[in-house]
Amino acid sequence: MSTLEKTLQKIFPQDTESRTLAKERLDQLALPHWALGDLMDLAIELAGMTRSLHPPVGRKAIVTMAGDHGVTVEGVSKFPREVTPQMVYNFVNGGAGINAMARQAGAKVFVVDMGVDADLNDLAKAGKIINKKIGLGTGNIATGPAMSPAMARRAVESGIDVANQLGPDFDIFGTGDMGIGNTTPSTAIAAVCTGKTVEELTGRGTGLDDQQLTHKISIIKKILEVNSPNSRDGLDILAKVGGFEIGGIAGLILGAAAQRKPVLIDGFISTAGALIAYKIEPFVRDYLIFSHRSVEPGHRFMQEMLGCTRPLLDLNFRLGEGTGAALAMNLVEAAVAILTEVATFSEAAVAGADK
Amino acid sequence: MSTLEKTLQKIFPQDTESRTLAKERLDQLALPHWALGDLMDLAIELAGMTRSLHPPVGRKAIVTMAGDHGVTVEGVSKFPREVTPQMVYNFVNGGAGINAMARQAGAKVFVVDMGVDADLNDLAKAGKIINKKIGLGTGNIATGPAMSPAMARRAVESGIDVANQLGPDFDIFGTGDMGIGNTTPSTAIAAVCTGKTVEELTGRGTGLDDQQLTHKISIIKKILEVNSPNSRDGLDILAKVGGFEIGGIAGLILGAAAQRKPVLIDGFISTAGALIAYKIEPFVRDYLIFSHRSVEPGHRFMQEMLGCTRPLLDLNFRLGEGTGAALAMNLVEAAVAILTEVATFSEAAVAGADK
Repeated sequence: MSTLEKTLQKIFPQDTESRTLAKERLDQLALPHWALGDLMDLAIELAGMTRSLHPPVGRKAIVTMAGDHGVTVEGVSKFPREVTPQMVYNFVNGGAGINAMARQAGAKVFVVDMGVDADLNDLAKAGKIINKKIGLGTGNIATGPAMSPAMARRAVESGIDVANQLGPDFDIFGTGDMGIGNTTPSTAIAAVCTGKTVEELTGRGTGLDDQQLTHKISIIKKILEVNSPNSRDGLDILAKVGGFEIGGIAGLILGAAAQRKPVLIDGFISTAGALIAYKIEPFVRDYLIFSHRSVEPGHRFMQEMLGCTRPLLDLNFRLGEGTGAALAMNLVEAAVAILTEVATFSEAAVAGADK
Repeated sequence: MSTLEKTLQKIFPQDTESRTLAKERLDQLALPHWALGDLMDLAIELAGMTRSLHPPVGRKAIVTMAGDHGVTVEGVSKFPREVTPQMVYNFVNGGAGINAMARQAGAKVFVVDMGVDADLNDLAKAGKIINKKIGLGTGNIATGPAMSPAMARRAVESGIDVANQLGPDFDIFGTGDMGIGNTTPSTAIAAVCTGKTVEELTGRGTGLDDQQLTHKISIIKKILEVNSPNSRDGLDILAKVGGFEIGGIAGLILGAAAQRKPVLIDGFISTAGALIAYKIEPFVRDYLIFSHRSVEPGHRFMQEMLGCTRPLLDLNFRLGEGTGAALAMNLVEAAVAILTEVATFSEAAVAGADK
């Protein structure tokens, strides 16, 4: 059996009994009922995911998947393509946004080369990045598929491999991405999966003006016409209009779910990866925590498709890299602290509410 | 000169040059422009408050001010009055929501007895709480003032004393409160300061039903009629319709601002304290960080009055104690990390956006 099939066999819904026991304890805490709101809801989720009333979340990994995109030749991004490898070096040197956010949250950053258009062998040999390179960037999806079906499967299985490799040492994962041009394939994935129009979904990425936005919308429409992916087949969507790093993110999510570990979903590109994972195995939804709402307009629709109406944070982020996921790890820890450290009315000898 | 007057003389607006220098650096970071949104705005505020491009925020104190309220005889809270001292013991024993949130954020909790209706001398002697007790609870504000003008001044000066006592050891403060019945004086303060109707401002506190809510609204209207505080005089508002812990919070804020230190405002009651501080000295506004939006409906109007349209978090909290302030300390740290740890385009040798 292949890595993918073996992984899917291990993905089950959350544990109902752990959820019930967590709720029972939270109901009795010495505070007005449910006064820590969304974090108490999150505590129930964490108990259900991990089958534990002491959900382990202390050992935190951010996995930042990098890849290049053939569609950049269409002028869909403000930044030149060489920024993808330059940013990989920035991650490795600790100077990027994700490094700062991860340090604050006590998380370790792993950078994965899923398909950067540059020779990064020196970094891989030095153990500074994980090498899962599938190609030197995807094909131009405005004229054909991003990758072959075999490459799509390999991208997802590479993400699973990373989750399995990190599994023994980490309790919780956060997704991240780097890839100049990758809001374009992510918007195409969003269009296929949510049924919303390209106009509703498309945003300014790293900073397009009005004319560039109109151009990007026309390119995404062309991408969908040229490729017409099967909306029920996650691997087909990935192969036709995806990206190597998006496949890696989908695999990381599947791998985390198979380990019953929570996975914090970062922004727009990560949520496209989550949609691919969800199309492959809908039960993954039980292991997703939505860290924040991105400025990209399509993000909301993608999150709603995955059952999330209120992500944890809403801070006008639009960076990716895993920055929102890292920041939200603080809130996950706080949710566990509520479940495990706050006394009940009887433990604290505090009088309850008048009936 | 009194403690209050001495403190007011030391409160100045934020430093414009530090703000400008911070913005210049943030504009050059190797990421799409302002892609970490609200935290980049916050980083500018922190630079302006602390006059530094490396704003110190590592040593964090949550100050939870406790006091009782005579108005509880009117049946405005679901919880009995003895819960105030019981919760003080819970804080001291580390079992409350604020203890869990503060541990997660790496903050130390200081509990101040501003006017709890119980003998807490044992805790004060053991150094487990700070004793600033002004009385055994306020007067019933539905029939007269909360306290004398002298007590109001003493409450505020006690908060300043706490800020001054903690000053040498802490970089940043978070406010917190405990006091059964204290959404009622806080709503009265909100009505006086925002000009909104009592109906718009009043919420269910710790869990009132419809009939109890209607009763609470009628009591708050009576409070305003009986006392008619001078809306331009912070000490008069505090004396007429406030609370000892609310005065303490106002003082803590004034003391923090005089030290040029950021102060994270917790929820509804803390924001009432911030309104009192603001009425005493409007420049304190430059040192406030609004941690979250409470479920209490009046909170939004109070925050807007103080210039805040988007608090950092919105997680359906309605606990108080300082829980929202503690949780938001993570975001303050992250904002500083963006300013101090992220490389610029030139430092990281990353190509900028195409022109």
